[in-house]
Amino acid sequence: MSDVRVIEVKQSVFADNDRKADELRATLRERGTFLLNLMSSPGSGKTTTLTRTIEVLKDELSIAVMEADIDSDVDARTILNTGVRAIQLHTGGMCHLDAYMTEQGLDELVREDAIDLAILENVGNLVCPAEFDTGASANAMILSVPEGDDKPLKYPLMFSICDVVLINKIDALPVFDTFSMERVRENILMRNPNATIIPICAKTGEGIDVLADWLRAQVADWKSR
Amino acid sequence: MSDVRVIEVKQSVFADNDRKADELRATLRERGTFLLNLMSSPGSGKTTTLTRTIEVLKDELSIAVMEADIDSDVDARTILNTGVRAIQLHTGGMCHLDAYMTEQGLDELVREDAIDLAILENVGNLVCPAEFDTGASANAMILSVPEGDDKPLKYPLMFSICDVVLINKIDALPVFDTFSMERVRENILMRNPNATIIPICAKTGEGIDVLADWLRAQVADWKSR
Repeated sequence: MSDVRVIEVKQSVFADNDRKADELRATLRERGTFLLNLMSSPGSGKTTTLTRTIEVLKDELSIAVMEADIDSDVDARTILNTGVRAIQLHTGGMCHLDAYMTEQGLDELVREDAIDLAILENVGNLVCPAEFDTGASANAMILSVPEGDDKPLKYPLMFSICDVVLINKIDALPVFDTFSMERVRENILMRNPNATIIPICAKTGEGIDVLADWLRAQVADWKSR
Repeated sequence: MSDVRVIEVKQSVFADNDRKADELRATLRERGTFLLNLMSSPGSGKTTTLTRTIEVLKDELSIAVMEADIDSDVDARTILNTGVRAIQLHTGGMCHLDAYMTEQGLDELVREDAIDLAILENVGNLVCPAEFDTGASANAMILSVPEGDDKPLKYPLMFSICDVVLINKIDALPVFDTFSMERVRENILMRNPNATIIPICAKTGEGIDVLADWLRAQVADWKSR
């Protein structure tokens, strides 16, 4: 038996996901909860990045994390070890989360409590999650150095909808010497001229302070508007 | 203007993809063409692995490659440089290929010519491509070391349907020191006890001879049955 709370979320029966997402965003704003939707390929380092960021922010913000996967509960378990609340969402084979699925997770995770920063770690996938508004306050993605600097050319929608792109595993740049930071910036900004780009190494903690500053400002702005 | 042939493939209008896939497989068997469906996350090294493998096999087998992506033609361009025929398939935003889309690509690429080995490089995605039979003779996937050894736990279907799993970027093992070859083998075999597992480094060419041997045997077996 797992000691991690696992929710089997059901796909929306509503045709209009965009309306549902807007409703969820309005509810989150009323409650003063900033929801970050974090996306990436499988294995880009979403959970490690979250762990590092939670370590920096957990004494100043109340944080709660939803870990979405098709199977397993390893990620929710990792997040629980940081001391913040976390649940595992199982998508029943689905390749993404929609607003209705996100709401089910939030209902279980947050209930009526005051949460400053809720984070949805989406299913590892650069295609489908980009097509569904989860109701989040902002979208973030991770591109890791070993994946290559050409990914914005191949997965245009994902890069165009993200407010912030984290370039992870920069410690591996010497091994992956065909990856150019200059070229990846050009490729990202071609898809989204307003994207904030933050190079990080979740393993060593490099750049996590910049990400924490960005999140702190986003949460403050969300609460003040 | 691109000098790479780009096909905008349309999603199937047929409800029964499995029947279409079986039909395509039968046609390929009649023609003596072995079709490999190659899948992975974005950036695991599909195109580099193909380039290396084509270098080994192109003088003994006639080879043709279909590169599927949502956008761009960089991969087909890379394959064309090896001297074999290649086309780029654009999926119109779709996260996978079905048998009907694969057939459209083959019709353009192979026509009536004798091809021993056709390869479909699927959209970079560990979820959706696993759900659709493309009509291929065999399924292959790449898991690269930086993605982590826990991926079979999170993406069970993909690992269960693949005849061969290539573990790529083994040159990066010293940097990604939490990746255990023993643990990844256990996790893969838990999902699929019959999977062939081949460690490779597409960058240096290590292990590509083993993959070429496997492919050579598969093609010979396909033609003899």
